[in-house]
Amino acid sequence: MATGEFLRNQWYVAATSAEIGTTPFRRIICDEAIVLFRRRDGSIAALEDRCPHRKAPLSLGEIVGDEIQCGYHGVRLDGSGRCTLVPSQKDLPIPRNFGARSFPVIEIHALVFLWMGEAGADPALIPDWSTNTAPGWAAVHGYHYVKANYQLVVDNLLDLSHVTYTHKTTLAGPGVDDVPMEVFVEDEVVKTQRIIRNVDPAPIHRATKGLNGKIDRWQLSEFRAPIYILVTLGAEPAGTTEALQVPSHLVLNSATPETATTTHYFWSVTRCIKTDDLELSRKFLEITYTAFDEDAAILEAQQNSMDRDRSGAPLVNFRGDRGGAAARRIIATKLDEQARLAAAAE
Amino acid sequence: MATGEFLRNQWYVAATSAEIGTTPFRRIICDEAIVLFRRRDGSIAALEDRCPHRKAPLSLGEIVGDEIQCGYHGVRLDGSGRCTLVPSQKDLPIPRNFGARSFPVIEIHALVFLWMGEAGADPALIPDWSTNTAPGWAAVHGYHYVKANYQLVVDNLLDLSHVTYTHKTTLAGPGVDDVPMEVFVEDEVVKTQRIIRNVDPAPIHRATKGLNGKIDRWQLSEFRAPIYILVTLGAEPAGTTEALQVPSHLVLNSATPETATTTHYFWSVTRCIKTDDLELSRKFLEITYTAFDEDAAILEAQQNSMDRDRSGAPLVNFRGDRGGAAARRIIATKLDEQARLAAAAE
Amino acid sequence: MATGEFLRNQWYVAATSAEIGTTPFRRIICDEAIVLFRRRDGSIAALEDRCPHRKAPLSLGEIVGDEIQCGYHGVRLDGSGRCTLVPSQKDLPIPRNFGARSFPVIEIHALVFLWMGEAGADPALIPDWSTNTAPGWAAVHGYHYVKANYQLVVDNLLDLSHVTYTHKTTLAGPGVDDVPMEVFVEDEVVKTQRIIRNVDPAPIHRATKGLNGKIDRWQLSEFRAPIYILVTLGAEPAGTTEALQVPSHLVLNSATPETATTTHYFWSVTRCIKTDDLELSRKFLEITYTAFDEDAAILEAQQNSMDRDRSGAPLVNFRGDRGGAAARRIIATKLDEQARLAAAAE
Repeated sequence: MATGEFLRNQWYVAATSAEIGTTPFRRIICDEAIVLFRRRDGSIAALEDRCPHRKAPLSLGEIVGDEIQCGYHGVRLDGSGRCTLVPSQKDLPIPRNFGARSFPVIEIHALVFLWMGEAGADPALIPDWSTNTAPGWAAVHGYHYVKANYQLVVDNLLDLSHVTYTHKTTLAGPGVDDVPMEVFVEDEVVKTQRIIRNVDPAPIHRATKGLNGKIDRWQLSEFRAPIYILVTLGAEPAGTTEALQVPSHLVLNSATPETATTTHYFWSVTRCIKTDDLELSRKFLEITYTAFDEDAAILEAQQNSMDRDRSGAPLVNFRGDRGGAAARRIIATKLDEQARLAAAAE
Repeated sequence: MATGEFLRNQWYVAATSAEIGTTPFRRIICDEAIVLFRRRDGSIAALEDRCPHRKAPLSLGEIVGDEIQCGYHGVRLDGSGRCTLVPSQKDLPIPRNFGARSFPVIEIHALVFLWMGEAGADPALIPDWSTNTAPGWAAVHGYHYVKANYQLVVDNLLDLSHVTYTHKTTLAGPGVDDVPMEVFVEDEVVKTQRIIRNVDPAPIHRATKGLNGKIDRWQLSEFRAPIYILVTLGAEPAGTTEALQVPSHLVLNSATPETATTTHYFWSVTRCIKTDDLELSRKFLEITYTAFDEDAAILEAQQNSMDRDRSGAPLVNFRGDRGGAAARRIIATKLDEQARLAAAAE
Repeated sequence: MATGEFLRNQWYVAATSAEIGTTPFRRIICDEAIVLFRRRDGSIAALEDRCPHRKAPLSLGEIVGDEIQCGYHGVRLDGSGRCTLVPSQKDLPIPRNFGARSFPVIEIHALVFLWMGEAGADPALIPDWSTNTAPGWAAVHGYHYVKANYQLVVDNLLDLSHVTYTHKTTLAGPGVDDVPMEVFVEDEVVKTQRIIRNVDPAPIHRATKGLNGKIDRWQLSEFRAPIYILVTLGAEPAGTTEALQVPSHLVLNSATPETATTTHYFWSVTRCIKTDDLELSRKFLEITYTAFDEDAAILEAQQNSMDRDRSGAPLVNFRGDRGGAAARRIIATKLDEQARLAAAAE
């Protein structure tokens, strides 16, 4: 179980685009307090949320032009973290090295991605979540604050057999855990899938697609380190699973760690069918909120149970856990590498 | 002061009979999370409340037949903790040793007793609290969640002189602490008693027995390790204390430790007089709740005060504290013995 | 940053006079729980709020004559902490050395000062805050519970340039941080001052003095270890700063530490003009509450930010911070001396 360590040289979702405006926005990510704000040209700046002067949170201040002004003594910093003004000694030069750490930011797919490392913020490493904003697609977005470690969220999304037990009123349908889950690992990507044929539909299929007879349904999850899980879901009348080739219902998940035991869980449900159907959008939003509330409840109870467990017993991996276990190995390997590099740099 | 150590090879009251049905019931006892549920034959099972698979609390699941099914991935365990189903790999044998710890349970006296140790769950060690259910007796039951160590509750019940100061509106009457408390220690039992003669009655005596003239009253407390205190109370018109031989008003107390600083305090008030008088039952329930609320308030303040005390000063034992001190010595001796056996077993 | 250490041989404001009556009053000061109560002659006693018997808080008991009686077993202590009665053994002598620690108390200036050290409680060391009660002066009083270390409150009051950024609707006016702050240190007293000439008035000047044209304003802060800051504020029509010689508006501040991260902040605003104007008193009270609420908010955020900062970076001292830095040096020096004496005494 990861405790207080996080992969630094990675992109993390810090916020939705809609959250960031011209008033300072505070969010803790990987145990670091960050303040985000939008400059006049629409670009986003991200600084550590701690004035380098007396450590008051910058987010209590205000944005002046493209700069943030501390709400305590008025120190001003630009979006790169460079100090531009110390009011109490305007006549003196600003000390070299006085400033706040800044973080690379890329806004894309209606999300704000933050690079928590020192260097190497390669945009190509951002997941391709273009269906969030692409023409021909409709998206709904949600956020859950989950009091559990982010790897528990990753585990959850890589073994969808839990729908039978955790999501009785939304996603549960017969036969899901009768089908052995397949797992594929390529480099730093883990894919799990289940194709379930000729079963009764789950409540979500009735509500969103009007399916009432036997169906084929499929669940594909694709993990990409450190926190991204793309879930492709489908359901069609039984016998038409060639539709699997054309994913029409995606769930894009980012499990951004806040602390070792809390997660900012951002999710989007996107679809390329009936994109103008607002009632369908409403249904997807409602059902997904209901289902992810159920996930949050079990994940928080799981975290609490692990916190108070003194048995020393490990988590047990069954067939359904192989995807999550592979994701954990990838994260662990990268954490080891990070620690090795840090040690070498000292 | 006991901190995080508890006597393991002991019976603890886990719940009242009424609390346990066919939905899972969670309670933390001696710092261990336990789930209890009733089988179809009415018997009660108790398991650690932590799925051996991914550690989610079993109590979030449901009872299927005589088994509990985890609410996360559907693992099923019977009442002995043996796993009977792993849904994600139905075709494979269940791994040997995969299961949850179970605890011996005995339901008697309208209470559910749990043996927190490994072996030796001897029913003879359960206190004889048959007046809870015996013909010819009437009982009322209550529960207080007290944010204090259970030994503070034991101390409280072994020195009833505190009624004068803590229970002004219910149990306080003149002269109680003018009578030196007598203490008897036999093996693992501690008895304290005060007989107070020719005094004015306390509010409880007026309310429940209509006593308004001078009375004799007596208070006997009998501690049995680790958490049981039987209190026998009596009040009769002055000069008739031979009635002491026929206890008519008993208070049966169990101070089950939840954690080092919290206690599940179960109590029953039983009587063999006017057993059909429901109004009298109501009065006993009301007065006892009022009085034990007062105890809980002072015990929680005492615990808080001890927690923040850095003086290093010990608790002081006066004459009234000899009973509690004897009980503490018994517990300490048994804890030492437990530690010695544990060390020898390693 | 001071953590859990406090200067012991010092007077601290424990309460306002109005807070202490004939029911016990509990307050934690320098991490010690204290109970205060008023004797029949009006004098105030202060004891540690922990019964020497079983450590219940004495403040849950009651005052009997000039003594406090514990609410658990009735132990009685007089105002010097000497035990006068142990009810459970009235016939035995009270053990020598059984009692509670008492603290020297002086009630003056409508405040209750407590000496937290062992000896040397010299009344001359109490700050001269006679304007709180002196004829010809009118005073309003307030209290803020601030979840921040008291030294952050001291810093705040020694650099009033923050009014521009933190108190926009009350004290902020142009030009304050254009004037370099002057700092004077004499022995254990630190004075900072700014005189700002020919500027527009702040909201408080319009509200309380009807000043609408250009003004001269001044801010003087005088720190006296360990927690006292006398602030003298003034504003007059521009060009009349000789009035500086006659302070008419004082703010008397005591930042009593509760714990390392919480402070009892007592303040009074006193004036020698329009002393009969109750509406003016109301305005001062309202404006000061508004302003100090703003201080409390930024100080609590600063404390929280420091608590979670793992950067190891120090607080930075600019020109405006020299007063606070000098106060911190005085406290640090005295803490070192205290530690040296404590070590020598062992």
